[in-house]
Amino acid sequence: MTRPRCSAFLATSLDGFIARPDGGLDWLTPFQSEHGYTAFFQTVDTVLIGRATWEVVGGFPAWPFDGKRVAVLTHRPLAAGHGELALSGGLSEVLAALSAGGARSIYVDGGAVVSQFLAAGLLDELTLNLIPVVLGEGIPLFQGELPERRLALASSQAYPSGLVQLRYRP
Amino acid sequence: MTRPRCSAFLATSLDGFIARPDGGLDWLTPFQSEHGYTAFFQTVDTVLIGRATWEVVGGFPAWPFDGKRVAVLTHRPLAAGHGELALSGGLSEVLAALSAGGARSIYVDGGAVVSQFLAAGLLDELTLNLIPVVLGEGIPLFQGELPERRLALASSQAYPSGLVQLRYRP
Repeated sequence: MTRPRCSAFLATSLDGFIARPDGGLDWLTPFQSEHGYTAFFQTVDTVLIGRATWEVVGGFPAWPFDGKRVAVLTHRPLAAGHGELALSGGLSEVLAALSAGGARSIYVDGGAVVSQFLAAGLLDELTLNLIPVVLGEGIPLFQGELPERRLALASSQAYPSGLVQLRYRP
Repeated sequence: MTRPRCSAFLATSLDGFIARPDGGLDWLTPFQSEHGYTAFFQTVDTVLIGRATWEVVGGFPAWPFDGKRVAVLTHRPLAAGHGELALSGGLSEVLAALSAGGARSIYVDGGAVVSQFLAAGLLDELTLNLIPVVLGEGIPLFQGELPERRLALASSQAYPSGLVQLRYRP
């Protein structure tokens, strides 16, 4: 069985935060024009997030993953309002379960889950949208014990807002 | 009196480290071709570093700041082997002292000092050489309590090694 393709598409501050300490994303508002997210989103059939990310996006005015199979890594019961699947276990088992369910291309989101995939060498592509803001505090993209790893830069593009989009192949 | 121009030129890993926990820079070796450092170095007359950076560069085979006035922010006595000046006090007083001594363009280096200048709004230019490596642990560039701050992106350039050079005006 072929392992599903796993990719991430994230915005981070210059000091490496993906959100304020409470998950807040208001600081991204000036940078929310189109940077290829829609095209990226169309390439995936499945979204895999952690519990913390699920709680943040659950508070959004609209569910951001419409039309995709969504799985949440969690050990606790999930009040799934959008057909989300609760999964736990090692990443290999999680990927096998998603693959058996038809997943071919997975959008991995949230600092904890992206870091887990990076640590395990299971991330095929990482798109970093580097926001020209120092936040000072927040939820870091890179979490936990990460082994040293060199990545290949596939592309870089600067936008008029000062956002720089960096695409890496770990 | 005009305040001296203060700029920084740093290499950081994707996870925001400028050195290994012990100050080690060996991971930068594959990326040490010319990225404009020499041209940058020629624009400054003074180097201002913290005690930790001074201890690391003191262990280099050659003193890297030859021909420049070097000041070290420290409260302890300094065994200066290259004519370094030990300075302490608030950044305004330090800048005033350096300016009185003839400094017009200061190269601010090391995570602690760069963060202090950034926090105080005293950094005129920040060049980040983003290395396509996740280090996992090390000395962070951004240290201490930094206020939220938007920066202007002046330029971005990708190099064949995968290094991306980002020049910001805070």
